[in-house]
Amino acid sequence: MELREQALKMHKENRGKLAVESKVAISCAAELSLAYTPGVAEPCKEIAKNTEDVYQYTSKGNMVAVVTDGTAVLGLGDIGPEAALPVMEGKACLFKTFGGVDAFPICLNTKDPDEIVKTVQLIAPGFGGINLEDISAPRCFEIERRLIETLDIPVFHDDQHGTAVVVLAALINAAKCMGKTLEEIKTVISGAGAAGISICTLLMKAGVRDVILCDRGGAIYEGREGLNSAKAEIARVTNRRMVKGSLADALVDSDLLIGVSGPGIVDADMIRSMGEKPLVFALSNPTPEIMPDEAKDAGAYIVATGRSDFPNQINNLLVFPGIFKGALEARARHITEEMMIAAAYAIASCVSEEQRGPECIIPSVFDRTIAGVVAEAVKKYVD
Amino acid sequence: MELREQALKMHKENRGKLAVESKVAISCAAELSLAYTPGVAEPCKEIAKNTEDVYQYTSKGNMVAVVTDGTAVLGLGDIGPEAALPVMEGKACLFKTFGGVDAFPICLNTKDPDEIVKTVQLIAPGFGGINLEDISAPRCFEIERRLIETLDIPVFHDDQHGTAVVVLAALINAAKCMGKTLEEIKTVISGAGAAGISICTLLMKAGVRDVILCDRGGAIYEGREGLNSAKAEIARVTNRRMVKGSLADALVDSDLLIGVSGPGIVDADMIRSMGEKPLVFALSNPTPEIMPDEAKDAGAYIVATGRSDFPNQINNLLVFPGIFKGALEARARHITEEMMIAAAYAIASCVSEEQRGPECIIPSVFDRTIAGVVAEAVKKYVD
Repeated sequence: MELREQALKMHKENRGKLAVESKVAISCAAELSLAYTPGVAEPCKEIAKNTEDVYQYTSKGNMVAVVTDGTAVLGLGDIGPEAALPVMEGKACLFKTFGGVDAFPICLNTKDPDEIVKTVQLIAPGFGGINLEDISAPRCFEIERRLIETLDIPVFHDDQHGTAVVVLAALINAAKCMGKTLEEIKTVISGAGAAGISICTLLMKAGVRDVILCDRGGAIYEGREGLNSAKAEIARVTNRRMVKGSLADALVDSDLLIGVSGPGIVDADMIRSMGEKPLVFALSNPTPEIMPDEAKDAGAYIVATGRSDFPNQINNLLVFPGIFKGALEARARHITEEMMIAAAYAIASCVSEEQRGPECIIPSVFDRTIAGVVAEAVKKYVD
Repeated sequence: MELREQALKMHKENRGKLAVESKVAISCAAELSLAYTPGVAEPCKEIAKNTEDVYQYTSKGNMVAVVTDGTAVLGLGDIGPEAALPVMEGKACLFKTFGGVDAFPICLNTKDPDEIVKTVQLIAPGFGGINLEDISAPRCFEIERRLIETLDIPVFHDDQHGTAVVVLAALINAAKCMGKTLEEIKTVISGAGAAGISICTLLMKAGVRDVILCDRGGAIYEGREGLNSAKAEIARVTNRRMVKGSLADALVDSDLLIGVSGPGIVDADMIRSMGEKPLVFALSNPTPEIMPDEAKDAGAYIVATGRSDFPNQINNLLVFPGIFKGALEARARHITEEMMIAAAYAIASCVSEEQRGPECIIPSVFDRTIAGVVAEAVKKYVD
């Protein structure tokens, strides 16, 4: 049976992928009187006296809202809140399966940033964290910023930061394979949307110095005409050599290409123009910017993609279960860049020196120890 | 150990009562590719083409939001959204345990009806039904009405209608014990809040003709000064004999007292003044309007309370799991009065003729067959 039929059948037979379960038995009057009236009044009264006690007596402390407006779902684009629900349910399943974190989808029937922010603020009392998902740029930046400023629980836009963390993890090991430090890696990022800008920001925070972001108009440099505010801001700290021209021009003599743009944008000649032992992270999914075989034939030293059928799968499933697990366990109010960098090094450390090599710069997503390792690393950086 | 300590311990040890679980295994690449990318794109695309397919491929069709603003929680009053969470989690546990319905608490950080309505509208895509809970009157009426008017999924304010249904179920069997028809039962309701008005409305829809509602100012009659809009409206169809005076005055020669007011409001003399074989449903919880022994001593033929430690517990746990189960299975857009009356007769039918008597007018809440019986009855009245 084809994947399409299999996927439809699985979703239909199970009537979706999520269930809400009671953690306590309610089969006699004594149990009912503890879980509901009159006993339930006792934790209510404690929380009414001291709001912080909600973390002791309820599921809030381990409960994440997976919030979307359905505007940028996978490669499907703006398909609306109902059509986004299978992805959000899947995300919630991954939170629980890999991180032991309870997560619940909230699919919003609005695209208005004010309404999205307001709604998340109003439902926040029941949640310990907010995972923003598949919200289109540049709206996602403003929504995330306003929620971080106003909520006392961590807010994390996984499409931006989850991707950035796992790219950094892969780069940490790839750089070791190359024998270079992060500071020495000349980087070109193809794609200046939410993911590209977030990857750029985290890599620089982690030590990478020379980054050129490229969009459809080629290399982004300070003062280029028509940049939106996010690009104009990042242009002030990237591409200090003021390279102008196409992606191909930017790639000459570079060490690392990170593609978060789309298929068919990178060709073999561009890979050949890169420096020695070039790294190619072609993350467009399901079709990478350049296929691994073609990139290898053109001289790529290490190739990573978002796909499970090639080596070096760069998948933010390695990130979000562990980073939320750690943030929730430590009652972090924010997920900081320090916590993200700690998560990246923790993920990189899950590949042993013996395993590490051009075909193995990142652990398998099915390594069930990772979320725990990431959580412990992240917790050390909570204020 | 006292109930208080037991309840706190149970809530603390379990870190709340609710968990979100994946219904599908995700332990290998094949399973991941069905539950998440790339397979998940298939149900997304189907739903994007036809929004109705969300009921086929996701958990929406069996998922109820338990929505509160924390303003009227149990007997505790306005304790806020965080302190309300233990009750909402408990409610969700009951939905699942008794009805097989997935339910999730949404505790709102606002008391503004406009914001509550707007928020529920915006999160509705992920839910198959809305259970409003512990929202204070008269705000609850407007909120429920506006949501019913604008949403295409059933909206049910359990504090009003769940209580009304189970009272009607008890009355159906009590009237049989008395040998009277519903039309003959002279009824007095003490308490004209959300529950009292809703009970009054449903009883009259089911055939009860002679009802006097009483509030702190005594019998409510058409034209009484200072009635709020809900009371003024109900005054036009109740108390057609235009009885004026106190609750004690209204009770003289009546057949049924329904108390949804508070402890200490009813005394033995009032019971003595009622007609032959009087019925006393003293539903204030945990302390009834009059204790069962005192009511019996004063001549009450049948006494029912909200408590599990006396016979005839009137508990809306008999109602909401089954009524939502039926409404969801039949994809009802609304929960109509016809569906509620059908639910009441179904609940009443769960007490057999042999069992029926003054100490048994209502089935046990732990009878696990009830939700199924109620659901089937309700489904027959869905358009």
